[in-house]
Amino acid sequence: MSSLTGGGAETAVGEIPEIGVGMLGYAFMGKAHSNAFRKIPYMTWPPPLRPRLVSIAGRNEEAVRAAAERYGYERWTTDWHDLVSDPGITLFDNGGPNAVHAEPTIAAAQAGKHVVCEKPLGRDADESYEIWKAVAATGVKHLCAFNYRFVPAVRLARELIDAGELGEIRHFRGRYLQDWGDDPSLDTWRFHSDEAGSGALGDLGAHVVDLARYLVGDVASVSALVKTFLPGRQVDDCIEAAVEFENGAVGTIESTRLALGRRNAFQWEINGSKGSLAFDMERLNEIQVFRNGGRTRGFTTVLVSEVDHPFWEFWWPPGHIIGWGDTFVNELHHLLRAIADDADVAPHGATFEDGYRAAEVCDAIVRSGESGKREQLSYRSL
Amino acid sequence: MSSLTGGGAETAVGEIPEIGVGMLGYAFMGKAHSNAFRKIPYMTWPPPLRPRLVSIAGRNEEAVRAAAERYGYERWTTDWHDLVSDPGITLFDNGGPNAVHAEPTIAAAQAGKHVVCEKPLGRDADESYEIWKAVAATGVKHLCAFNYRFVPAVRLARELIDAGELGEIRHFRGRYLQDWGDDPSLDTWRFHSDEAGSGALGDLGAHVVDLARYLVGDVASVSALVKTFLPGRQVDDCIEAAVEFENGAVGTIESTRLALGRRNAFQWEINGSKGSLAFDMERLNEIQVFRNGGRTRGFTTVLVSEVDHPFWEFWWPPGHIIGWGDTFVNELHHLLRAIADDADVAPHGATFEDGYRAAEVCDAIVRSGESGKREQLSYRSL
Amino acid sequence: MSSLTGGGAETAVGEIPEIGVGMLGYAFMGKAHSNAFRKIPYMTWPPPLRPRLVSIAGRNEEAVRAAAERYGYERWTTDWHDLVSDPGITLFDNGGPNAVHAEPTIAAAQAGKHVVCEKPLGRDADESYEIWKAVAATGVKHLCAFNYRFVPAVRLARELIDAGELGEIRHFRGRYLQDWGDDPSLDTWRFHSDEAGSGALGDLGAHVVDLARYLVGDVASVSALVKTFLPGRQVDDCIEAAVEFENGAVGTIESTRLALGRRNAFQWEINGSKGSLAFDMERLNEIQVFRNGGRTRGFTTVLVSEVDHPFWEFWWPPGHIIGWGDTFVNELHHLLRAIADDADVAPHGATFEDGYRAAEVCDAIVRSGESGKREQLSYRSL
Amino acid sequence: MSSLTGGGAETAVGEIPEIGVGMLGYAFMGKAHSNAFRKIPYMTWPPPLRPRLVSIAGRNEEAVRAAAERYGYERWTTDWHDLVSDPGITLFDNGGPNAVHAEPTIAAAQAGKHVVCEKPLGRDADESYEIWKAVAATGVKHLCAFNYRFVPAVRLARELIDAGELGEIRHFRGRYLQDWGDDPSLDTWRFHSDEAGSGALGDLGAHVVDLARYLVGDVASVSALVKTFLPGRQVDDCIEAAVEFENGAVGTIESTRLALGRRNAFQWEINGSKGSLAFDMERLNEIQVFRNGGRTRGFTTVLVSEVDHPFWEFWWPPGHIIGWGDTFVNELHHLLRAIADDADVAPHGATFEDGYRAAEVCDAIVRSGESGKREQLSYRSL
Repeated sequence: MSSLTGGGAETAVGEIPEIGVGMLGYAFMGKAHSNAFRKIPYMTWPPPLRPRLVSIAGRNEEAVRAAAERYGYERWTTDWHDLVSDPGITLFDNGGPNAVHAEPTIAAAQAGKHVVCEKPLGRDADESYEIWKAVAATGVKHLCAFNYRFVPAVRLARELIDAGELGEIRHFRGRYLQDWGDDPSLDTWRFHSDEAGSGALGDLGAHVVDLARYLVGDVASVSALVKTFLPGRQVDDCIEAAVEFENGAVGTIESTRLALGRRNAFQWEINGSKGSLAFDMERLNEIQVFRNGGRTRGFTTVLVSEVDHPFWEFWWPPGHIIGWGDTFVNELHHLLRAIADDADVAPHGATFEDGYRAAEVCDAIVRSGESGKREQLSYRSL
Repeated sequence: MSSLTGGGAETAVGEIPEIGVGMLGYAFMGKAHSNAFRKIPYMTWPPPLRPRLVSIAGRNEEAVRAAAERYGYERWTTDWHDLVSDPGITLFDNGGPNAVHAEPTIAAAQAGKHVVCEKPLGRDADESYEIWKAVAATGVKHLCAFNYRFVPAVRLARELIDAGELGEIRHFRGRYLQDWGDDPSLDTWRFHSDEAGSGALGDLGAHVVDLARYLVGDVASVSALVKTFLPGRQVDDCIEAAVEFENGAVGTIESTRLALGRRNAFQWEINGSKGSLAFDMERLNEIQVFRNGGRTRGFTTVLVSEVDHPFWEFWWPPGHIIGWGDTFVNELHHLLRAIADDADVAPHGATFEDGYRAAEVCDAIVRSGESGKREQLSYRSL
Repeated sequence: MSSLTGGGAETAVGEIPEIGVGMLGYAFMGKAHSNAFRKIPYMTWPPPLRPRLVSIAGRNEEAVRAAAERYGYERWTTDWHDLVSDPGITLFDNGGPNAVHAEPTIAAAQAGKHVVCEKPLGRDADESYEIWKAVAATGVKHLCAFNYRFVPAVRLARELIDAGELGEIRHFRGRYLQDWGDDPSLDTWRFHSDEAGSGALGDLGAHVVDLARYLVGDVASVSALVKTFLPGRQVDDCIEAAVEFENGAVGTIESTRLALGRRNAFQWEINGSKGSLAFDMERLNEIQVFRNGGRTRGFTTVLVSEVDHPFWEFWWPPGHIIGWGDTFVNELHHLLRAIADDADVAPHGATFEDGYRAAEVCDAIVRSGESGKREQLSYRSL
Repeated sequence: MSSLTGGGAETAVGEIPEIGVGMLGYAFMGKAHSNAFRKIPYMTWPPPLRPRLVSIAGRNEEAVRAAAERYGYERWTTDWHDLVSDPGITLFDNGGPNAVHAEPTIAAAQAGKHVVCEKPLGRDADESYEIWKAVAATGVKHLCAFNYRFVPAVRLARELIDAGELGEIRHFRGRYLQDWGDDPSLDTWRFHSDEAGSGALGDLGAHVVDLARYLVGDVASVSALVKTFLPGRQVDDCIEAAVEFENGAVGTIESTRLALGRRNAFQWEINGSKGSLAFDMERLNEIQVFRNGGRTRGFTTVLVSEVDHPFWEFWWPPGHIIGWGDTFVNELHHLLRAIADDADVAPHGATFEDGYRAAEVCDAIVRSGESGKREQLSYRSL
């Protein structure tokens, strides 16, 4: 028999509610998030909700129209207020430049929409705090899109740490190295201080801070340098920091856009009293695991793709690796699940509080760079 | 302004013709191909054609119905003949078990539909030849889904070789190592000789043969062993072969499902008179390139993700790697482009002739395993 | 106090007997063995015997004189018979070209001297058998210098296999890849068939065969290709073989001097029913160990340098790696221990029987290359 | 003919002058240095001087007597003053604990002997300065044994940098990670502040500082943390520092004895405006080299073992790697060459000035750890 005669297939999937998505931004993050929303309904099965791409907003009319066509948004607009006022939108996704994170995200939340905002949450801790405070007051779900928490290897790391397999954490060494900044002729909003807030710090360093917090805990102090190498560049090219954590661990946090040969090398290592972990985003499907003891001790290269590995129920047979873009499927699925079940985004998803706390560390790095002093962190509450 | 007032976005994408897809098979390959068809319209922009998922066929009614819902096929059927007779289908994609490659694929082609067939094309060279002959006679486009030709690193390898950067090729060493076969309790069509034809040979070894042919050239002889380790298993667990190529290169071809710790390790190395290449599918975004000469000679680990790298116009910024599933986007885009432009699938896409020629090598491996002799290859023409 | 007043230090070391060494060959192997004899007395403490470098022989007077000076031999000669008749020599070390392995080694043994002979033992199985037979009849200790058995990682591999940690062995894939042969202008005895017997086969392939035997067991059959690429070269440039072992394992054995970019890449992998091992001589201090099971399964990179690792009592603190030359210290220490204790050289040291058996496999590879057939092995006894 | 009738071999080597060596210390460094002195006469040919192992000193009579026997020193003593007054000693080698670096080294130099002193030179900058000042005044050759400058890959790195191949240096990230300190029951002089001065800082961090200086240039400031994890330990377990160099480069310097799984991982990376380098002492024969540009850009793994690579004239054919112990052969050969030719130890050998300057950086790290401030460096002159 066949559906030509039998039918009924639409019924089941039809029982999964739709959720209208409004997207701000059509460039790099717009592509990454739109791809994820389109894949969730069949890669994660059954999906918690079925994203419906309702509308996309951007400043350039031609580009936003093309993006709407390309990604399948039903409508487009050059005015983000249209997203906020759109009754078909339940989830507002802010993938725009840092300068337009605050106002639209707050407005959307105040209009009752759940919100995703790309990192860094705000251009500094104050702005980030304001976003968090305003959004938290509305009661909607909020996710700061630190997508690297949703790399299977990173989640596995967290699970190993939570299970005590590393013992007491003593060291975190994290560095996010890229090299695309080494082009004096390049211009992007990421090089403008008013639009970006900072350079390698907010763009890359914020990721390091977030995973440091996710895997080790909150940062207690930073002793840092902030440096701009290229003449005329408004924002930092790199940051270097020695850090202490509240739990006593120590280490380094670094980010740069001038590490020639490193294209997306978000590398980190964690040493504990029982074992160690090491990771490199350029090989995002792998994690190095060391457990103390035994005659064949050493770092084990785990290809994170087993049926009992995080997120792997969505993907392929073991060894058939996923890509960078797929981390957004894992991430936005998590948010949709939280919305569908009215569950907490934390601890595995970064909330706006996490976005704010990362910004406090970034601010402290800037302060330390200027003061030449070890800067102690203090975090505001709501 | 916005599309709320302006509209028109649908017009442009509407100018790209649709192509109706009928899929046979809803399991591993059904998921991989369906995902690719759904991603092509926005990841490759503008797409050559817009796939419309018309119908999916499979033996188990419940499963095929669920697959139709999940992947968004408009209809489903338990009888593949419905796909062949469906006027809405222009492209027939055969992702079913090996035993159902021949009849449905030939029927679809004879019904005027372009055809994709998973590898191995047939269960042996005779069946593969029959498929090729029958399909070629119809004039439709045909692609044997050796998707690893569409790994960016593999295409880059081919381009380097075509440009003469390796000089004369002397060695090819290819091995496809997995370990999932090491489970006596496991049962699948892949272990039944009538359904699969062979074991690690057709499943994995065929991939090695195909890339050997794609990168080095046709195989002239094989001296091989075929071995089954697990009691009661109907098909081979592994093959081992010393091979000669028509151009004089020599090397080895191996495949096994019993290499514990190797999950998807399709590893190959090519040595030429000017340089060498090495690859491992578990790190599919990387290729090792050696060029002779210079004080800092050595293998360079190229992260294949640059704007001037193959297929990378579809994907992400450098260093933001793709996954195994994404190779099907590259592959099926290639086929859609060939259909849209009435262009050749060869040389970069594997045609049914390539599927047949790989089968001749696989058959020779079986013959050599039985005869204990070096078996010379001869290939039939149409 | 000090030895200026106290003395006595010489007494203890003086209690360790000396052993007079006569060396044939002053080039590559002469340097490697002489270095080992000089290091044993203090790196292995207390040494089983204290080597005394009595005499060195070589064809070129100027060169052998210089070698005697350089390495500290008390005498030198251009006639190896002088070593055989030298009463001060108890251990005869044959590091000369393959063509002078048989006669001097047999003569030395018949003169009652223990003998070391570089690999391959003879230029073919017949010659190797004659050497073994003649030397075994004398009752002296004999070691065929397959030094790679004395790489700590290799010994560790053997110990793990002996302990059953890999279970039943199913696969051995060994390849010894170098690239120095890719120079048409180069001339050496290694390219002359009368002096070398064979090319990459006896030079490199013999090492692969020996470790295959040491780690897996005796070879039952080979299906092989033998190929010479460079015009005018008398010996093979490479061999490729599919092999069966007597215990049922299957795999490949390869060697080449034309693998551009591979300088000393003796790589092997072993898969068993419980685990796997992988090794590369270019990183000779490391072994990759896979054990099945667990959520963090994968290959562990063991830096073989722990106090409980083979040979490590001779060397440095963990992580302070040894070099290729140091493997000869381990090897010749083993022989001196066997001589001092009148213990067996086997199973960890390769005896002349091992040298002969490896030669049978090499001969079978040549025969298979010529016959185009799978050649079964048979081994002669004394 | 042979030396039995001809002789004369001793003549040539006899023309190379001997140099009497007095060694303080018989443990780890005593073994490493003694081994080097014994290997130099034949591994480096012709050697600049022939070391004669005259006398060895140490506190424990039994141990020093055994060491004399083992390494072949003609005499031994429990009083280092005997070395200073020994007319047979021309070169004094101080391999003792840090607390006995100053007095014996200065005394030996003042007695007219050339001096080698293990790192760190003194227990702090003041002591190091005093040693440098006193020794420099005597006019003897002085070498602070930062042996890692004599790793072939490190020298190659320096040569590439000197040749401008990296362009302007922007980043140095160096970390020396070991894990043997993670043993509360262990006691050694290295854990006693009076004997060692500091912990991971002086032991491992000093190496990082020295290579940073050798490869990048002098350090301008440090912002650091100093931490002791294990209860009751008198010295630091680790240090973490963000650093600026006088030439504007920035980066990090770290050392720890608590990085589980890292046995001797002195890892560093340098990024310049034209290229990058990366290194790990656990694979000391390799260096990763990145040069910008080209379609196959990436890090090249150079196996530093070619005839045109540093120090390789002493060693083996390409790909036949050296060990950690062999770096001392390269280092002490350099010193003997400087003595023989009355040439400068600098710039490739670390002088006592280098030892002092490294100590200033280490002191600044301690000061910064205490003050919480970025500490600027200032260096004293003679």
